[in-house]
Amino acid sequence: MPHPSPGTVLSFRPLWIHWGVWREGGSRGRRGLDFFITEIPEEVFTYSEANPMAFAAPRPDIYPYLLVNIGSGVSMVKVSGPQQYTRVSGSSLGGGTLWGLLSLLTQAKSFDEMLGMAECGDNTKVDMLVGDIYGGGYGKVGLKSSTIASSFGKVFKKKREGEAAAAEADGDGDGDGAEGAEGGEGAGGEKGPRFREEDISRSLLYAVSNNIGQIAYLVAQNHGLEHIYFGGSFIRGHRQTMNTLSYAIKFWSRGEQKAYFLRHEGYLGAVGAFLRRQPRNWGRRYSAGEEHGGRRVFTPAAAGAAAGAAVKE
Amino acid sequence: MPHPSPGTVLSFRPLWIHWGVWREGGSRGRRGLDFFITEIPEEVFTYSEANPMAFAAPRPDIYPYLLVNIGSGVSMVKVSGPQQYTRVSGSSLGGGTLWGLLSLLTQAKSFDEMLGMAECGDNTKVDMLVGDIYGGGYGKVGLKSSTIASSFGKVFKKKREGEAAAAEADGDGDGDGAEGAEGGEGAGGEKGPRFREEDISRSLLYAVSNNIGQIAYLVAQNHGLEHIYFGGSFIRGHRQTMNTLSYAIKFWSRGEQKAYFLRHEGYLGAVGAFLRRQPRNWGRRYSAGEEHGGRRVFTPAAAGAAAGAAVKE
Repeated sequence: MPHPSPGTVLSFRPLWIHWGVWREGGSRGRRGLDFFITEIPEEVFTYSEANPMAFAAPRPDIYPYLLVNIGSGVSMVKVSGPQQYTRVSGSSLGGGTLWGLLSLLTQAKSFDEMLGMAECGDNTKVDMLVGDIYGGGYGKVGLKSSTIASSFGKVFKKKREGEAAAAEADGDGDGDGAEGAEGGEGAGGEKGPRFREEDISRSLLYAVSNNIGQIAYLVAQNHGLEHIYFGGSFIRGHRQTMNTLSYAIKFWSRGEQKAYFLRHEGYLGAVGAFLRRQPRNWGRRYSAGEEHGGRRVFTPAAAGAAAGAAVKE
Repeated sequence: MPHPSPGTVLSFRPLWIHWGVWREGGSRGRRGLDFFITEIPEEVFTYSEANPMAFAAPRPDIYPYLLVNIGSGVSMVKVSGPQQYTRVSGSSLGGGTLWGLLSLLTQAKSFDEMLGMAECGDNTKVDMLVGDIYGGGYGKVGLKSSTIASSFGKVFKKKREGEAAAAEADGDGDGDGAEGAEGGEGAGGEKGPRFREEDISRSLLYAVSNNIGQIAYLVAQNHGLEHIYFGGSFIRGHRQTMNTLSYAIKFWSRGEQKAYFLRHEGYLGAVGAFLRRQPRNWGRRYSAGEEHGGRRVFTPAAAGAAAGAAVKE
């Protein structure tokens, strides 16, 4: 069974328990994110290969921002204030698409297994690059030779060529090919070239992630937003995914927009739901041992020391 | 072999002969489109289910517009004048992606076969709809129950459930399932539920087309463009594709943008290349028999009649 979203652990309503985390992008998700951004240190971070987890300090002036929640599908919510948010866009190409495709195209049985395969893959075996078309980059329009021109773009042609070669090699027509001929069961169960599951996984992970990043950039651009927070159960702390999303935002916006991630991305809804029900002034808001407004928050250790000092006096 | 782009017939440079029609979005494609839009009647049309081919009259004030060329990948070019154009965006999720995926997930051997399958498919068997999540629409954010929340979003769960049921039914562990149990070879060659190739084809056609439509809308929005022309060899006059692209533009722009198609979408580059080489005032620009500027263009029939009249006089 698919790994349930951590949000299901603390949810209040059964209907909301959907592993697609569709609702994470709703009011609970946004409320949870506001809390994470403004009050929790070492929660929000930016990602790059050079600096995989650069924490962004909690900041008070957070509005407006774009929340991109990636579950089965994708929701994009513009948050302009504590009670002001609008779902401005989304995409049906999300986690559900990737897991669905890879469940038919590979032997992987879980999301993490699929991500593990992607880490070992070479997408250039199945993707068509700008370099494959032009023999180099297309600098005139800012496209490097390594830029993906068409995701999965090599597959159709390679498969047909492989099938034709196999048919030609199988001169006696008995379907057993010829000794030494390249062939065998393809990823689709067909005779012909076999595409490595790792290459397929990496290609499709890139395709889905790049696409989400591009749409997020365009939506943020349309709404004049610079800060984009990615949440939801799709990311799962996977480096390739975060790298791809970050790179897409940086590439398209030429560095003007910033992509942020969360250490507890799957808990947005749960935390939001908790905060929604939380009575005013319930408990303490600051972590034990922290100073706030010149006053040190009560801690058991401090209480013990104070009691000891009082006794001595 | 894949059907070569008609553009290859008249191309001047071998490197340009790429069935992905990558170059259609370049200068030749744009030049060809300008020609089609301004001078050729019954070439450009809008599509809707009620009115599948409503021709748009050629118009002189065509700039600026967005040209979306869909081949293996997608190129989006903003055209501001006869010599003013910029590639403003693109996507790696294009025809190559769809054909590649369907070549592994179905038995189809050609693009037209894949499109034929899509026509007979029911995408709701593999896509997760808003209605599946909420039990109805999510009107608050403008989502109907029939809106696709996650393309292919039902596949992973159904497959896992099917495999678990098959394993349970195969009580003796000999791998032959149980009589009457639902199962058999799945689309990926796995034991478990079989997804109809037609349903898969329709789902992925919608996914790719919707995505291109959405990105085209966002890019046009960013650049203040209302007119979007779709060209390239992907469309192939297929109604579902044109309907999906048109609907996406109409939905996202609330009717403010317009999607146009071409009867000879694959010839943009060829025509553009021809026009580029055409000497000034070479031949006549108007079709035989047409009036232009008060003067009837010479036609063989008219010449014969005039000669006959001169003789009589």
